[in-house]
Amino acid sequence: MRPFRDLIPFEDARRILLENVPVIEDAEEISLEDAPGRVLAEDIKARQDVPPFDRAAEDGYAVIAEDTFGAGQYSPKEFRVVGRINTGEYRDIEIGSGEAVEVATGAMLPRGANAVVRVEDTEREGDRLLVYRAVHPGFDVAPRGEDIKMGETVLEKGEFLTPARIGAIAALGIPRVKVFRKPRVAILPTGDELIKPGEELKPGKIYDVNSFTLSAVVKENGGIPKVYPYVEDNVEDIEKKLKDALENDIIVFSGGSSVGERDLLIDVVSRLGRVLFHGVQIKPGKPTWAAIVEGKLVLGMPGFPTSCLNDAYQFLALALRKMASLPPRTERIVKARMARRITSTLGRQQFFTVRLEKGIAYPAYKTSGAITSLANSDGYIVIPATVDLVEKDEEVEVHLWG
Amino acid sequence: MRPFRDLIPFEDARRILLENVPVIEDAEEISLEDAPGRVLAEDIKARQDVPPFDRAAEDGYAVIAEDTFGAGQYSPKEFRVVGRINTGEYRDIEIGSGEAVEVATGAMLPRGANAVVRVEDTEREGDRLLVYRAVHPGFDVAPRGEDIKMGETVLEKGEFLTPARIGAIAALGIPRVKVFRKPRVAILPTGDELIKPGEELKPGKIYDVNSFTLSAVVKENGGIPKVYPYVEDNVEDIEKKLKDALENDIIVFSGGSSVGERDLLIDVVSRLGRVLFHGVQIKPGKPTWAAIVEGKLVLGMPGFPTSCLNDAYQFLALALRKMASLPPRTERIVKARMARRITSTLGRQQFFTVRLEKGIAYPAYKTSGAITSLANSDGYIVIPATVDLVEKDEEVEVHLWG
Repeated sequence: MRPFRDLIPFEDARRILLENVPVIEDAEEISLEDAPGRVLAEDIKARQDVPPFDRAAEDGYAVIAEDTFGAGQYSPKEFRVVGRINTGEYRDIEIGSGEAVEVATGAMLPRGANAVVRVEDTEREGDRLLVYRAVHPGFDVAPRGEDIKMGETVLEKGEFLTPARIGAIAALGIPRVKVFRKPRVAILPTGDELIKPGEELKPGKIYDVNSFTLSAVVKENGGIPKVYPYVEDNVEDIEKKLKDALENDIIVFSGGSSVGERDLLIDVVSRLGRVLFHGVQIKPGKPTWAAIVEGKLVLGMPGFPTSCLNDAYQFLALALRKMASLPPRTERIVKARMARRITSTLGRQQFFTVRLEKGIAYPAYKTSGAITSLANSDGYIVIPATVDLVEKDEEVEVHLWG
Repeated sequence: MRPFRDLIPFEDARRILLENVPVIEDAEEISLEDAPGRVLAEDIKARQDVPPFDRAAEDGYAVIAEDTFGAGQYSPKEFRVVGRINTGEYRDIEIGSGEAVEVATGAMLPRGANAVVRVEDTEREGDRLLVYRAVHPGFDVAPRGEDIKMGETVLEKGEFLTPARIGAIAALGIPRVKVFRKPRVAILPTGDELIKPGEELKPGKIYDVNSFTLSAVVKENGGIPKVYPYVEDNVEDIEKKLKDALENDIIVFSGGSSVGERDLLIDVVSRLGRVLFHGVQIKPGKPTWAAIVEGKLVLGMPGFPTSCLNDAYQFLALALRKMASLPPRTERIVKARMARRITSTLGRQQFFTVRLEKGIAYPAYKTSGAITSLANSDGYIVIPATVDLVEKDEEVEVHLWG
């Protein structure tokens, strides 16, 4: 047996990961329809003024503001209606003093006009219009370039594309944008006991869980998962599969919970690259390791499904988002009371899965029941390395999954 | 001008929507890889015991527990090693008294064994094994069916498929699941002034924004968007496009901010169906309406991009998630201080867009600057209908977008 020589604190492991993860700089051009959730790899500049012309902000009549001065409830000013401009229509009209053009909201103003009087402040008979309210120049007009001037930078490289920002790009008439390409993540479940769901369960075998949970977490955090054939528990196959997988940005091994088995993987990665850490002061997840091989991040995660999933959220999502220039994952946290007393191991930060019911947190972990725990847990509570007991009814913060 | 006769409070509008939105019951079968984020349309039952056999929970030796009784640090018990079982391997071995079989974590136990002694509690030479610790029956054994018994319901219809639950299904060996089909949402931007991004901007025209923001919100909330050709501002085209779009589950019109223009749409939907509400006490979003036409939900939203986007979050996402049996959208809310005093209209609940910088909320709305606002706003604050003023430095809750 070989011990984990250098268990490091959880936050140190995360810091080391972040320091060693390269940020993807390659860009790809995609259509705006596919852009939500991506990250801009270019500045977006306005190709024209927005709005591109002076336009009416309300339904009414475009006039020369000065002609309305002195108008009031009992002293209307009279205008002659010389035309109408609908929204989306281009009409080359110019007005002179005493003239008005009927306009819909959003319509271009005729040349010469500098204000809009609202329809409710007027009375019309044929082409005769009475205006009962004085307006100042610019009233109810959205002038050309008011919002954005041509050439102005509207969005910067590195910005996360929310629906609102997608809208801003559409408004500028830009149909395609450059975004950073998504990180590719190789998933390599290891273990001779694994078979695929759908295949017949033979004695001694169990169904592969981790490639499904890891793939789901990768997609949720902006990456593209690729599941490789199961890795056999021998040095030759580990090395071969690792080399195949180096075409990706991150390589994740999952499996082998014992010290003995783990060593094969660590032996291979220490020979081919540089180990960043091996062993973390957390429960579950103690045997977690990270390495850099040919510039690529390689992660080693426990094979036990709940431990692997927890590692995926704590380490893989973190690395992935840094690499993809995505904002950190937002955790949803709710307060609850513990249904019963639970104990924890001093010296290791514990992630304890719980099921939530009406504000009460129940342990989701049924002895070694990995699957029950996966199916029933709504999230986990964090028990610091310095705490060995959480009392019944104590208030806890539950970090919700997914 | 025709007034909005019956402006209703915001919460009433949301309640009415929820009461009238049908929940989709049709299911489709998909592979487990595609299942994250979907909702189960069937119960998931275990097809076999989990674990499917008694297995070792640690690396060590499978023995008959009773043979270890009396063993201690200075009084080892002696065993004869009769074989080894690796993880994933099936070997038909039976042990008798005084015999041990070497096992790896996760390996099947040989017949006859009822406990595992850990490797660190033993000393081995050839096939002679000394055990320095007594263990009770069941020690370090995960017995068959401990986690789940065959036939047990592991997940229920209606459950949201998180990565963890996907993992639980994989563990049961189930490769495909029935989920509710996604709601289809027809997006019908209206207005003769609209042109598509990428096309040349002609005088009087503006680029369509809302089909992009609406599509993004639909996808974010579990629906499938379909953008229809722009609707012309006349009754015939509105009626034709609406009828075409009724093959979807929700139909969204966006556009026409004036009272006059809006009436065409309302006239058509009141003739073909039943109006649920027309006009809501909110800003922006006053002219919002909802109707049921041939059993389908039809929504009318303002054309102004920021107003339309706000409506999408407040109404469309709500209806969509109910329809799709998805949990409510989780809002991310952060506290901030207002950079300056802002005023609001009494009698209308205002959604005021802000940009966040170091805990300070700056108004994102630059006069009528819809695009600047879209590009720069990080979220919005809610100013209740009974409040007309938010003071500088006042603490506010910012609801973050996307």
